[in-house]
Amino acid sequence: MIDFKADLAKLISVEDFQRRVDEAKPFVARAQQDDFGGWVDLPINYDKDEFARIKKAAERIQSDSDYLVCIGIGGSYLGHRAVIEALGGAKKTKILYAGNSLSPRELQKVQRELGDKDFSVNVISKSGTTTEPAVAFRIFKQMLIDKYGEAEAARRIYATTDANKGALHDEAVAKGYESFVVPDNIGGRYSVLTAVGLLAIAAAGVDIDALMDGAEEERAALISDGGLATEYAVARNILLESDYNIEILANFEPQFMYFNEWWKQLFGESEGKDHKGIFPASVIDSTDLHSMGQYIQEGRRNLFETFVEVKEEYDGVTVPELAENLDGLKYLEGKEMDYVNKTANAATREAHTAGGVPVLEVLMPKLDERSLGALIYFFEMSCALSGFCLGVNPFNQPGVEAYKTRMFELLGKPGYEK
Amino acid sequence: MIDFKADLAKLISVEDFQRRVDEAKPFVARAQQDDFGGWVDLPINYDKDEFARIKKAAERIQSDSDYLVCIGIGGSYLGHRAVIEALGGAKKTKILYAGNSLSPRELQKVQRELGDKDFSVNVISKSGTTTEPAVAFRIFKQMLIDKYGEAEAARRIYATTDANKGALHDEAVAKGYESFVVPDNIGGRYSVLTAVGLLAIAAAGVDIDALMDGAEEERAALISDGGLATEYAVARNILLESDYNIEILANFEPQFMYFNEWWKQLFGESEGKDHKGIFPASVIDSTDLHSMGQYIQEGRRNLFETFVEVKEEYDGVTVPELAENLDGLKYLEGKEMDYVNKTANAATREAHTAGGVPVLEVLMPKLDERSLGALIYFFEMSCALSGFCLGVNPFNQPGVEAYKTRMFELLGKPGYEK
Repeated sequence: MIDFKADLAKLISVEDFQRRVDEAKPFVARAQQDDFGGWVDLPINYDKDEFARIKKAAERIQSDSDYLVCIGIGGSYLGHRAVIEALGGAKKTKILYAGNSLSPRELQKVQRELGDKDFSVNVISKSGTTTEPAVAFRIFKQMLIDKYGEAEAARRIYATTDANKGALHDEAVAKGYESFVVPDNIGGRYSVLTAVGLLAIAAAGVDIDALMDGAEEERAALISDGGLATEYAVARNILLESDYNIEILANFEPQFMYFNEWWKQLFGESEGKDHKGIFPASVIDSTDLHSMGQYIQEGRRNLFETFVEVKEEYDGVTVPELAENLDGLKYLEGKEMDYVNKTANAATREAHTAGGVPVLEVLMPKLDERSLGALIYFFEMSCALSGFCLGVNPFNQPGVEAYKTRMFELLGKPGYEK
Repeated sequence: MIDFKADLAKLISVEDFQRRVDEAKPFVARAQQDDFGGWVDLPINYDKDEFARIKKAAERIQSDSDYLVCIGIGGSYLGHRAVIEALGGAKKTKILYAGNSLSPRELQKVQRELGDKDFSVNVISKSGTTTEPAVAFRIFKQMLIDKYGEAEAARRIYATTDANKGALHDEAVAKGYESFVVPDNIGGRYSVLTAVGLLAIAAAGVDIDALMDGAEEERAALISDGGLATEYAVARNILLESDYNIEILANFEPQFMYFNEWWKQLFGESEGKDHKGIFPASVIDSTDLHSMGQYIQEGRRNLFETFVEVKEEYDGVTVPELAENLDGLKYLEGKEMDYVNKTANAATREAHTAGGVPVLEVLMPKLDERSLGALIYFFEMSCALSGFCLGVNPFNQPGVEAYKTRMFELLGKPGYEK
């Protein structure tokens, strides 16, 4: 289970904070009943047959592919990348990412890395017509056909798409690709624990049973009244009302870099509308204490930080002993690096607090599948509740169309001519 | 040469803007005369002998090492990583990064990647006592000794440090490491074109002559009155005065990810003090249009964007033709992906402008060494001028010590006991 701590004594009384929390509790049911609230009960009612098919497909990919090329953008790629990298990277089939930009250089980089290795493709797109993944799919599909022939290429393409309609669905049916479902009632940024995320995660060798178990356990803790997720949601809104309008997710594990990016999409896309919302940013410390640290410590005082901490100690790398003490590290000799890292985390929280930065803490028991599943669910619930507190719809993203529409006009897409 | 465009007609008249630019022009001389202004004339007066030694050392590393482990944090690693990755990654010796965090998991990841390959180490630290690199240096030095013995290990260690004093300097002298200089008059975040950045950059196979030539050319364009860098500096401050206090550097090439991080350190650490400054953030588009795009388009209106654009077209990857048109891409068949990407960039600028986001543009002629050297110099000059406009010292970073001091207290470092 995820723990959460906030000390907002300077901004609000304990009683008023509790009143705000009580007011927010009904939002859990509101999320659950929303047309896009399918993620709320997902950990207990996911499609077990599809889940078994995902594991089977992952085994097949592991047996016949050095690489799985995942083609998707936004919620169709950030979730699985976040999970795989947060757990230390792929242990089985390596994952490559394509179709999340329009850069030809990036596409060639993936092709170079593939070389002549065996690979499969997981194309993830509800409609099948989003420009970035659609362009990449044309290219990698052709590569598969050139390498393996039509029939084997079709066997190596896994389509995660709409259950009933759309370009990719229709192609999958026509060509016989194995298909998985992007549910209608779960938006992209909440979809990591559906087939959208799970196939790549499983192919990489992650235990998806444990991941779902962690989410299920966290759901049990939050489903009645939001639990600590409600506290986090309310704390964020109280901070925003006090003009702290930038939130920095601070993590002391570099392998959380893409998890931070997933979190930024989750909160930024859910809340950034109607000219409202907290600007989501992130750092990996202590790395970024030597880049963003100065600003956080002494810059404009409109930001707060949410520290993610792993409780369990990670032993095995100690500071080596040396005869001389030129570098002044003698006092650390024999100490675990993880202890030093955790101490840096604590010191940073204290230093930033002293510098006028409100600090929140989100604590996960371990850095494993189960804890990560719990953390994902905790943030999803927090985000939905926080959006409702803010008075926005946390499940839509109307602004994402603006650049696409203008791009289609400039490119002369049929139907978009000016 | 770097081009710059801003349309601030809604915020300031052409005359008033020009007046502000004129007021800022003397700041070029102020930067040049500052004790930490050594980067201003660096492109024309760098140490040619050391530069030649760097190239020789790089050749040696290329000949005897599959990997160069670069140990440094903040300005001692972001600059070279930014340059190498922006140019598409290492073409010769591969670079690994250590000592920029305290995570034991990250350190083991580097060790796993190294495996039993041949490697050298470039340890970059002015003092030699910064905790993160000092811990990593102890570990990788021991690995070199275990693998190659004392004498060969010493030959494989390259120390970039103070010219005359400090722990690393003294060790380098005692052990006979080849050494390069971290200049006294150039701070870490302005140091990429010194030995701090150049050894790794050269070892990776980048043409450092062209890089310096680009910086020299840009210096010539800016040295009299700051040129377009003054316009960028003034534009940022005018935006800040109008409560646009978040700047997002927007790039459409994924390989600029670490360049964006370098830029964030440059501006954040230079301006984030005295409770002032613009919060620096970044996106890689069109990737992040599907994560941060919603917030940028319709969220809180206190942000502006600076788009980095490469003028030259990059041909060679076209949208493939298909018999069917299920994905609706027929209208793009045969078109260069780079053209589509550049169109997305233009469309995004227009869409965000229409959404109420002020947009600035920084244009580089090509994506090559020369243009990147120019871009680095342009941003360095802009940053210094912008800091002076803001009324802060753009060359110090007093707040970085706060977490260290508290960490030393918690760890019981001699001299820091409470």
